[in-house]
Amino acid sequence: MIIKTPTHYFLVCGASEGFTPLNAFDAALLRAGIGDTNLVKMSSIVPPHCQLIAPVPLPGGSLVPTAYASITSDIPGEIIASAVAVALPEKPDYPGLIMEYSARGPKAEIEETVRQMAIEGMKLRGRVIKELNSVAVEHRVKKVGVALAAVVLWEKEEVEQD
Amino acid sequence: MIIKTPTHYFLVCGASEGFTPLNAFDAALLRAGIGDTNLVKMSSIVPPHCQLIAPVPLPGGSLVPTAYASITSDIPGEIIASAVAVALPEKPDYPGLIMEYSARGPKAEIEETVRQMAIEGMKLRGRVIKELNSVAVEHRVKKVGVALAAVVLWEKEEVEQD
Amino acid sequence: MIIKTPTHYFLVCGASEGFTPLNAFDAALLRAGIGDTNLVKMSSIVPPHCQLIAPVPLPGGSLVPTAYASITSDIPGEIIASAVAVALPEKPDYPGLIMEYSARGPKAEIEETVRQMAIEGMKLRGRVIKELNSVAVEHRVKKVGVALAAVVLWEKEEVEQD
Repeated sequence: MIIKTPTHYFLVCGASEGFTPLNAFDAALLRAGIGDTNLVKMSSIVPPHCQLIAPVPLPGGSLVPTAYASITSDIPGEIIASAVAVALPEKPDYPGLIMEYSARGPKAEIEETVRQMAIEGMKLRGRVIKELNSVAVEHRVKKVGVALAAVVLWEKEEVEQD
Repeated sequence: MIIKTPTHYFLVCGASEGFTPLNAFDAALLRAGIGDTNLVKMSSIVPPHCQLIAPVPLPGGSLVPTAYASITSDIPGEIIASAVAVALPEKPDYPGLIMEYSARGPKAEIEETVRQMAIEGMKLRGRVIKELNSVAVEHRVKKVGVALAAVVLWEKEEVEQD
Repeated sequence: MIIKTPTHYFLVCGASEGFTPLNAFDAALLRAGIGDTNLVKMSSIVPPHCQLIAPVPLPGGSLVPTAYASITSDIPGEIIASAVAVALPEKPDYPGLIMEYSARGPKAEIEETVRQMAIEGMKLRGRVIKELNSVAVEHRVKKVGVALAAVVLWEKEEVEQD
């Protein structure tokens, strides 16, 4: 294994305005509770037996494997939203599936889409869904805004220590 | 070393339709034999002495350093293709070079381009090529399609255990 | 911790023409002194107590956590530039902030923007800046050009060994 396989995961979301698109992204991460870390973007599986936990504080500057959806807009008044969904299989020896989606539009619509995406992905694998979790956030743009939703993969030791 | 340096690598490709672009990407990964993992995208070097192997099953949900090209299209009838090439130097103490390319067009054309890209990259380094491998895949879009080609970096222990 | 937290960092930049956009990117990395490695892109924090060093040679093919800005252009004559800034807090137990920015325009302008972005990000955190470092590079496009600026996170052992 080149990189350790995570044992725990949690879902977060946040949105913000910012001085520039990257500042708005940075601020959205802070609001989501995962700012001040180094997100390493990955595609998008929950390892078998990986456990859902409530969000925990992450050590400052740590490298954090994360699946996320993010959308930026500089159109004043526009509604943007991001959502992530996690579908877990009935058989715990199989992996779960993470889906990410962001678009213009209200939170309810974006979240419904991402849940359907996870359902379709599990159908493709022939796996019965035991549990389907999702979070979503929407944002009305003032000048430059970002909406972000993420699934953070982490590990037990860290969770216990913090 | 923050992350271990891989010792083995393999080339794969796959293409698929999907419910959304991300579902098509997910399905293309499954067809390529690297679905159900967490791809960590990286730029694009084969470490010295890293060995080419046939594709191996990857543990579900593992974090997998991968260089890949991916293209999405929702234009019915369009042909899209992705390819990766790996150029290895005569002197085994030097790194090899991975190139990725995807575009509209037939597989043969895209694969020829990516091979030329690898040749140019080795020329820039002043390294004589000992071996040049590539894979490519094309896809005719129905509604939403993805074509993906990847070089997966992995390590010996995993290969032996699986 | 899924991935080790880096202990040292350095700033680099480079620009180049290339046979294709990816070849130009590859050549820009070589000019920046971080070619022949596998950059793993991450968002964008300096861990507490992480120390600034002069650029060091990285082992060929190693996986290197990096925050970077990159811009590609194929418009002959266009000036493109990339910059990164690192803002460190007065209190060393807090993380520092990396910002990346690239755009059409001269180096001085892009670097000024990225420094302002770092200042805004620290203001948002309520942290007083002790030190603000940045690098930037510009490039006049001939056929296909890339300008790249990066903050590489690394660790002490490697620095001492090399």
